[in-house]
Amino acid sequence: RKGEMAKLTQLINNEVFRAYATYTAIVLLKMMLMSLITAYFRITRKAFVNPEDTDAFGKGESAKKYLRTDPDVERARRGHLNDLENIVPFVGIGLLYALSGPELSTALLHFRLFTGARIFHTFAYLIPLPQPGRGLSWAVGYAVTFSMAYNVLKTTWLL
Amino acid sequence: RKGEMAKLTQLINNEVFRAYATYTAIVLLKMMLMSLITAYFRITRKAFVNPEDTDAFGKGESAKKYLRTDPDVERARRGHLNDLENIVPFVGIGLLYALSGPELSTALLHFRLFTGARIFHTFAYLIPLPQPGRGLSWAVGYAVTFSMAYNVLKTTWLL
Amino acid sequence: RKGEMAKLTQLINNEVFRAYATYTAIVLLKMMLMSLITAYFRITRKAFVNPEDTDAFGKGESAKKYLRTDPDVERARRGHLNDLENIVPFVGIGLLYALSGPELSTALLHFRLFTGARIFHTFAYLIPLPQPGRGLSWAVGYAVTFSMAYNVLKTTWLL
Repeated sequence: RKGEMAKLTQLINNEVFRAYATYTAIVLLKMMLMSLITAYFRITRKAFVNPEDTDAFGKGESAKKYLRTDPDVERARRGHLNDLENIVPFVGIGLLYALSGPELSTALLHFRLFTGARIFHTFAYLIPLPQPGRGLSWAVGYAVTFSMAYNVLKTTWLL
Repeated sequence: RKGEMAKLTQLINNEVFRAYATYTAIVLLKMMLMSLITAYFRITRKAFVNPEDTDAFGKGESAKKYLRTDPDVERARRGHLNDLENIVPFVGIGLLYALSGPELSTALLHFRLFTGARIFHTFAYLIPLPQPGRGLSWAVGYAVTFSMAYNVLKTTWLL
Repeated sequence: RKGEMAKLTQLINNEVFRAYATYTAIVLLKMMLMSLITAYFRITRKAFVNPEDTDAFGKGESAKKYLRTDPDVERARRGHLNDLENIVPFVGIGLLYALSGPELSTALLHFRLFTGARIFHTFAYLIPLPQPGRGLSWAVGYAVTFSMAYNVLKTTWLL
């Protein structure tokens, strides 16, 4: 019954939906980790953007010098934004895909590839690895989301 | 039966949910397209942000000059961020709206207006069209999402 | 029956899901408000980024001086981006959490804490309040989302 939407009454025990929930929670937690990494670099590199954030270093000119950009902070922020740009489509399209009745093995392949690619992407961005490491991992995640969107539109198309 | 939440047991054949899935997939794919447009401008304008991305142009000073901002790249990036800011609320509120049991014709009007407005917004941003073209298309998408949120809160309100 | 996924057939009358819908609509509307606040500062501070946005102030050099950054505009934009980074995980993980069958009182505690923390965070960012006001409100929202993710993974874990 490929291509037929799964009965939502069975969603509770639906393994595809459970798999979706597991991998979505993992990639969203991974995205949230970027906040901690950015904060870590801001504190260790003493590079802040809000004047009220440097008050702990003293008032006035002595603290003002910490209002600056730092390459490591900016790199973590770019990784975070790239996560937002790619994980948001995965979460939205993935939910519709999980409800469109795919085979468990096919769905798991999609979810695992995406999650693995995004975790690799983070390492490739932060270390950083030489290209095309980061570019390829981005492309894998992109292709997986595109494939899920194709399956959603094939099943639900109603303009 | 306006205002009554649709029976989720019928979600499979629920035309409102199918319409939501179709338009959500379309606007998320449109948002994903912004990554390709940004990459296109980065490559054709030779304007990169990560040192490891310019290694293909040779090592050292010769490649360093490509670590720069470019107006077209920045414009595509602003369009992408504006998509994130507006499409995320549409996807989240739209799902709740689709489950709140609206008439199909009303729901289609919301989804079509939003999708059309965001596609127009992208053209208005990238060409660029004179204002208030971009501003108005932004406002249409914003008003549609607000209208859906109003309907969700009217149906589900439980603080 | 803690830990057992709620029957989706009862989702219509499911109070946890209604609570999720209410608080998700509220925090997404709050996030959308950041667009209006940024626009307000752009107009009152006359600080724009797109050349076509300053045409109302006359063509040529007289308008060009309004293509600049402004501290209040940048602060509102940072608040908006911080919302995206934190509200996206809440909406995605919160949906899975609401479907994982938590007690209504526990779920309400999560949703209320998150919503209150993010509203406080916005005030703390815009006024701005001295630290650690903003930092603590960010941490409360973060911890709530993490707690929901833990419950989702405990219920659905299927790698």
